[in-house]
Amino acid sequence: MAKQKKQKKQPRPRALPPKGFRDYFGAEVREREEMLGRIRDVYELHGFEALETSAVETVEALGKFLPDVDRPNAGVFAWQEAEEEAEGAPKPGDWLALRYDMTAPLARVYAQFRNDLPTPYRRYAMGPVWRNEKPGPGRFRQFYQCDADTVGAPSVAADAEICAMLADTLEAVGIARGDYIVRINSRKVLNGVLDAVGVADEAMREGILRTIDKFDKVGEEGVRELLGKGRLDASGAFIDGVGLSPEQAEPVIAFLTARGKDGAATLANLAAAVGGSASGAEGVGELETIATLLEARGFGPDRIVIDPSVVRGLGYYTGPVFEAELTFDITDEKGRVRRFGSVAGGGRYDDLVKRFTGQSVPATGVSIGVDRLLAALRMKGRIGGGAARGPVVVTVMDRARMGDYMTMADELRAAGIRAEVYLGNPRNFGNQLKYADRRMAPVAVIQGEEEAARGVVQLKDLVLGAKIAESASLEEWKARPAQEEVAREDLVAGVRAILERQG
Amino acid sequence: MAKQKKQKKQPRPRALPPKGFRDYFGAEVREREEMLGRIRDVYELHGFEALETSAVETVEALGKFLPDVDRPNAGVFAWQEAEEEAEGAPKPGDWLALRYDMTAPLARVYAQFRNDLPTPYRRYAMGPVWRNEKPGPGRFRQFYQCDADTVGAPSVAADAEICAMLADTLEAVGIARGDYIVRINSRKVLNGVLDAVGVADEAMREGILRTIDKFDKVGEEGVRELLGKGRLDASGAFIDGVGLSPEQAEPVIAFLTARGKDGAATLANLAAAVGGSASGAEGVGELETIATLLEARGFGPDRIVIDPSVVRGLGYYTGPVFEAELTFDITDEKGRVRRFGSVAGGGRYDDLVKRFTGQSVPATGVSIGVDRLLAALRMKGRIGGGAARGPVVVTVMDRARMGDYMTMADELRAAGIRAEVYLGNPRNFGNQLKYADRRMAPVAVIQGEEEAARGVVQLKDLVLGAKIAESASLEEWKARPAQEEVAREDLVAGVRAILERQG
Repeated sequence: MAKQKKQKKQPRPRALPPKGFRDYFGAEVREREEMLGRIRDVYELHGFEALETSAVETVEALGKFLPDVDRPNAGVFAWQEAEEEAEGAPKPGDWLALRYDMTAPLARVYAQFRNDLPTPYRRYAMGPVWRNEKPGPGRFRQFYQCDADTVGAPSVAADAEICAMLADTLEAVGIARGDYIVRINSRKVLNGVLDAVGVADEAMREGILRTIDKFDKVGEEGVRELLGKGRLDASGAFIDGVGLSPEQAEPVIAFLTARGKDGAATLANLAAAVGGSASGAEGVGELETIATLLEARGFGPDRIVIDPSVVRGLGYYTGPVFEAELTFDITDEKGRVRRFGSVAGGGRYDDLVKRFTGQSVPATGVSIGVDRLLAALRMKGRIGGGAARGPVVVTVMDRARMGDYMTMADELRAAGIRAEVYLGNPRNFGNQLKYADRRMAPVAVIQGEEEAARGVVQLKDLVLGAKIAESASLEEWKARPAQEEVAREDLVAGVRAILERQG
Repeated sequence: MAKQKKQKKQPRPRALPPKGFRDYFGAEVREREEMLGRIRDVYELHGFEALETSAVETVEALGKFLPDVDRPNAGVFAWQEAEEEAEGAPKPGDWLALRYDMTAPLARVYAQFRNDLPTPYRRYAMGPVWRNEKPGPGRFRQFYQCDADTVGAPSVAADAEICAMLADTLEAVGIARGDYIVRINSRKVLNGVLDAVGVADEAMREGILRTIDKFDKVGEEGVRELLGKGRLDASGAFIDGVGLSPEQAEPVIAFLTARGKDGAATLANLAAAVGGSASGAEGVGELETIATLLEARGFGPDRIVIDPSVVRGLGYYTGPVFEAELTFDITDEKGRVRRFGSVAGGGRYDDLVKRFTGQSVPATGVSIGVDRLLAALRMKGRIGGGAARGPVVVTVMDRARMGDYMTMADELRAAGIRAEVYLGNPRNFGNQLKYADRRMAPVAVIQGEEEAARGVVQLKDLVLGAKIAESASLEEWKARPAQEEVAREDLVAGVRAILERQG
């Protein structure tokens, strides 16, 4: 943190955002807007409706469903309202908090408006969420989510629809088929396996969930150890195991590694893993239904697969769970090549609305990590590739003729061309051109006293000018001058010609 | 507030947002998006760049510049970070708060990035802001603002540009010329008048500012009384006056009422009102420059006028101030006809960045009240007029053929037609049609066993159906049946034909 050297009576405020927060400039904002616009189009096309809840909810409405509960600083940004006068006696104010996801507010909205909303209610929501976590490199405390959920549809056709829409969405924003995979699993099948091996204790079940969620990191043998007595981790520390016997652990491992050569083989392996559990058999049946629906619609295993190794840590899922992973490799900040990884996840959560109403309401949905997806698109060169083009800059040669310069900018704008007049101190013309460079202006418009008298303007091609400055030979310089004169009335046509030439 | 009747061990959370917060559904969200998109296009065309700061700032960075300081509950939503370990000793956490406007974060960003940003820096920002105020009917604690500011441009050409862009923006979103007026005044001129009458005391100056801001409400005579000894208000309470002598009050009144038959007359009146004050004369000169620039660009008094009765309460303005007012009449909730009133305001504030850096940085900008502007567009029937059209609903006659129904929806979507499959319990077909009605579906697609066997689908025109149900004679019913059969392969063409017929 920057510290003030001089101690003053009233120290100046630090010009910094709070730790873990950041600003987004120009193209960063536009690119996110554009991506969200594409996602919105897909969601709308599927009949989903926009919902925007406020950033602030009561703490009681949010509940305690925050993921990553094992991180120490996990939490929300919360504060208490001032106390109110209620019939004479002051009443303590409500605790309010910034939303940490879009699902908790959806449950509140559906409970509140359930008599007015259509059922099933398909809704999407896009916006920032806040987590009061320890910030770190690339880890921010405000970030965007983009969710789609269906509330009130008990059939897993709703889950299949969400998964297919997720695949469509990834392609719509620019992730090529083959560069992503949507993987589906079922919490019910896992519960069935745990029923079959006789684990009824809730805390133990949660421990198992957290353990198999580490499959990606520690592999099959690591999970086996952690399900049993425990293991030494890379740093040499001993991590306690969940305490399953080998006979109990093996069906869990069989579940995790059930993915076969095709969907039918996977389903057969899962059916074996759940043994005689009714809930487990139901889960396998649901996965089968999803697979059949997706196949009928032409969503093959190149886009969506059943993969029991996807677990997703969140405690509140009750049925199918799914995750979209980008499968191409990237080089991380430590120089290691690895898969890009997860950009979206979700599942069925049938109990969230019940908190409010007492009645179970089926629901399923997905959340896209907007910032990660944007990062992926940047890496693939789908956005941010070319240098952004700034506005045409009309320079100011004669301060008294500001109205004329403003009118030139007006004419360009009327033709749909971004344009602005230089509004700094015009005395130093070099500064005006430096400004135009910094703005990435494609063209500078120049009209001094002499040009005004002759009824012409000078148009400076700044893209060509930069190229010439870099490398041009004398011949090139002569052949393609980076500055040309046009009649004042041809201003727009002249600028447009240069813009077209620049491509 | 809804209270729970039964006292339970763990009472259910209330399904309500916090007081003063609300939710936005479907078309409300889309309409705001579209309006902001139009505004963004105008801002971009003028060379302004997007900036998105986080919702959260440190309290020290926000400072104390909240408008409406005379309201008792005025304030921000703030909380303190947990204390940190710093070299052994715990360090108290920063106070954080939700931003209450877009200007304070801009000042922080410009101070932070001043060496990397172009100067002048034109930026726009759109998003919610939060005020911890007492909520009331139509008064929310989260609302949208849409700002454009130019930082680092000392010339009032920047103010003129903002005012012209504001007029363009209002027309771009659908406010007709003649239905709005942008009014410009100068804080410098007012200060000049106060210099001329010998009021140096800051508190007294602020009192005068607040008083003349009530001109609209209490009229010339009311302001005269409030500048002097005080007055009885409508309720019979006596409001203390600022305490000016009549000789001091008259020039202030002359300033307030200086608007003449045209700009030149107004400027002459103002020049007289400031007497010998240098600051006042400078302010008048600035207004003259702005008037000249606007005239040169063709922005006549039908769009932008100099009007000294616009004051704007905010203390931090240092030069030109402006306000956009919608001039058409509306009937308010109490049945009274009144002007719609202000939808945007701003001005020059040259000292906000100085708080951080110690160096004065000129800045000017405008803030559009997004919700008020949306309300105006709704009243003028520019948005939300026609009934929103929902998606085509593919009904489910045969649960086992869900894949076929999903594929029908896919085909419609591939043709750009919003479509969804009914995902509730399909047993009761009447419920499916009720659902389609609630979704405002234009068409329902129906294919039972018998139709499937014959390779056809039924298309039900729900718009025509509703009309017929309301009023059709037998002849009409026969002539234009609201349901037709097409071959399965003509599904898309058939739906499209109905949509086109519906217009």
